[in-house]
Amino acid sequence: MVQIVSNLIEERKILELSEYFANLNSVDIAKDMVDLRNEDIVLAFRILPKDTAVEVFSYLELDMQEYIIQSITDSELKDIIDKLFLDDTVDIIEELPSHIVKKVLKNTSKEKREFINQFLKYDENTAGAMMTIEFLDLKESMTVKDAIKYIRNDSLDKEDVDTCFIIDNNRKIKGTLHLKELILNNEKTLIEDIMDRNIICTSTVEDQEVVASEFKKYDLTCMPVLDKEDRLVGIITVDDVMDIIDKENTEDFQKMAAIQPNEESYLKTPVLELAKHRVIWLLVLMISATFTGSIIKKFDDVLQSVVILAAFIPMLMDTGGNAGSQSSTLVIRGLALGDIEIKDYLKVMFKEFRVSLIVATVLASVNFLRIYLLERTELAISITVCLSLFCTVIIAKVVGSLLPIVAKKLKFDPAIMASPLITTIVDTFALMIYFTLAKVLLGI
Amino acid sequence: MVQIVSNLIEERKILELSEYFANLNSVDIAKDMVDLRNEDIVLAFRILPKDTAVEVFSYLELDMQEYIIQSITDSELKDIIDKLFLDDTVDIIEELPSHIVKKVLKNTSKEKREFINQFLKYDENTAGAMMTIEFLDLKESMTVKDAIKYIRNDSLDKEDVDTCFIIDNNRKIKGTLHLKELILNNEKTLIEDIMDRNIICTSTVEDQEVVASEFKKYDLTCMPVLDKEDRLVGIITVDDVMDIIDKENTEDFQKMAAIQPNEESYLKTPVLELAKHRVIWLLVLMISATFTGSIIKKFDDVLQSVVILAAFIPMLMDTGGNAGSQSSTLVIRGLALGDIEIKDYLKVMFKEFRVSLIVATVLASVNFLRIYLLERTELAISITVCLSLFCTVIIAKVVGSLLPIVAKKLKFDPAIMASPLITTIVDTFALMIYFTLAKVLLGI
Repeated sequence: MVQIVSNLIEERKILELSEYFANLNSVDIAKDMVDLRNEDIVLAFRILPKDTAVEVFSYLELDMQEYIIQSITDSELKDIIDKLFLDDTVDIIEELPSHIVKKVLKNTSKEKREFINQFLKYDENTAGAMMTIEFLDLKESMTVKDAIKYIRNDSLDKEDVDTCFIIDNNRKIKGTLHLKELILNNEKTLIEDIMDRNIICTSTVEDQEVVASEFKKYDLTCMPVLDKEDRLVGIITVDDVMDIIDKENTEDFQKMAAIQPNEESYLKTPVLELAKHRVIWLLVLMISATFTGSIIKKFDDVLQSVVILAAFIPMLMDTGGNAGSQSSTLVIRGLALGDIEIKDYLKVMFKEFRVSLIVATVLASVNFLRIYLLERTELAISITVCLSLFCTVIIAKVVGSLLPIVAKKLKFDPAIMASPLITTIVDTFALMIYFTLAKVLLGI
Repeated sequence: MVQIVSNLIEERKILELSEYFANLNSVDIAKDMVDLRNEDIVLAFRILPKDTAVEVFSYLELDMQEYIIQSITDSELKDIIDKLFLDDTVDIIEELPSHIVKKVLKNTSKEKREFINQFLKYDENTAGAMMTIEFLDLKESMTVKDAIKYIRNDSLDKEDVDTCFIIDNNRKIKGTLHLKELILNNEKTLIEDIMDRNIICTSTVEDQEVVASEFKKYDLTCMPVLDKEDRLVGIITVDDVMDIIDKENTEDFQKMAAIQPNEESYLKTPVLELAKHRVIWLLVLMISATFTGSIIKKFDDVLQSVVILAAFIPMLMDTGGNAGSQSSTLVIRGLALGDIEIKDYLKVMFKEFRVSLIVATVLASVNFLRIYLLERTELAISITVCLSLFCTVIIAKVVGSLLPIVAKKLKFDPAIMASPLITTIVDTFALMIYFTLAKVLLGI
């Protein structure tokens, strides 16, 4: 596709290019433009019809938006900013360098500038920062005919017009009305008689994660946002919620792999930044792991007399770590989706205990068969290894399931209680059990 | 809330109860009913207005749906099934025991039964299995007035009426039309003049994950589904897509923790089932870990002469595993979100190599300070440990980043190349490097 566009630009076939674009969705045009040379981007961008151009602009990567803003004239920029949805404008202003922001604000209407300033005050990750102000508001006293006339006359482009919001003179929300009701009902029907008074709404300060779970719970496509005085100030649309769900999941994946969360996409993040987000947890875990090492040091007489015991350390540590991570992952995910709550901790522990009994029995038996019968390891050592494995798996699963719930109770993110930390904790248990059993069973 | 409901039922305050329900959303009523006694559920259910009852029913857990179906009369059931969306009906039929399904099918109209049979043929996880058939179809030749009249006369409840789908006489899709266009345009305007011909659609056999990423890419709220002959057979709505996104993420979390994916929620899954989903991977990994053990066996002369070397094994193994998991997690997530593609493998490897140089230098230096200066370990041993750590971290990161891409290239799910498997692989490298360096540097 890129080849087509750059060829057409090369040969200055402006008409063909604009026809080619006419058949594409804005998202795809934006994707096509990624690989163009900078000067070609601006040319291609100028060929687009105004409305399409604004849409394409909102889908472009930040560095390209920056390049375009720098390259086009003030009046061209003004046209774009005028039509750009407020939430997209705010995103650009938050991310771009200050000299670009200046050029943007210079070409923004006073009214929109005021809105932007208000938006910049909302904390990141809140409903306020997610919402947009382009929505349709009606009054209870309107008839269907009035409402239709009002919608027709309202020139502003609305991000989500599937639902209208009915407010009173103080901008307090009274109900919602699906557009189809305007089509299905008689012209003379009053809005207040057909509106839905059962409103699911949120406040500007609500956490975006909570908003996302409300959307899922109630199968919403949009949600009104109220300020502290309960006035309707904006709406959140489902497409932004899907982005949030992806972002929150990525954050959990990163935390669970001992990485400090980073929103940038992998290939765009500089090496130093990537290293910085990883090294701190690795340091903490490395130093914790040396405690595990000190257990081995403490038992070096045991190891000295039966050096073969060392050969089973990796298997014990890895299996314990894996068994613990399985439990912690399931519980972390359950907590994130709301399937598991803090009050379920006894249920979870008991369940994991029973699961671990089964799993530990299978693993220890298979291991015994292998090392005693196949590898002909001494019986006493085989028993030591398998009994240690049995106990380690049980402790790993119970600890692994409990720690995320404890973290949540202490208001930490349960996701930090994942594989890396659980592994380190379980290692200590595994080695203590192993060497203590060895001492007793082997009589060292 | 549950207290209120059961109290009202206890005291047979039917009017109060129905008023209480009137102020609640169907999702919340369904949630309230979870903790009621079985006989109270049916009573509460019968109090609800018919439309609400159907909605509440679709939000109930399977076991409660089953109980209600068993308890109500055939004519009550018929009312529910008639109004239930087809995709919800299919879900129930797929999940419930056969004698319940019989009762459901007996009370389903012949037309709906035919649709259900057709639906049951679609593979799980495809667009066909996700879609619903309740949508609005218009013809190109209609005027806005015709369309509005057609919509008003159409008695069927449509799951998503924000968008109408324009089809020809062979049911081929010609365009889409947002409901607002019917309000904004003149009565005499022809549908073909205002419809959007740029249609993003999918086919019944498409993978649900691909459908979800299209929704995100194009910010859709619904998407038409075509059969092999390109006829419009159904639509997919955004609420179902959000469920899929959650499901797919849960699956990835499970795979990455060496668990075979399981769709049931944690607390509802029987112990034996949980154990079964975990034990296979644990067995595979346990047996792989014994290869690591055999390296220690091979070098037992080294360990015999310098037994203190064993004390650093946990730290080396854990740090290597963690460093590798960080890289594999980022790459797996990048691949899942489409940020990273197979063709980027060289870029990724080079990036991880540079990141690992920084991270390995920091970790090895801190470790050297600690074990040589603080713990006064012999210089040669300190150097052996830190050099091994340095090499292990570099190998871990490069291998950890590459394996998920290799898995994807070989058409495996990259998510299996996560922490557990990477740890086992990296352990082997770590110990080989460690003992070889020890032999050379300590002259054993």
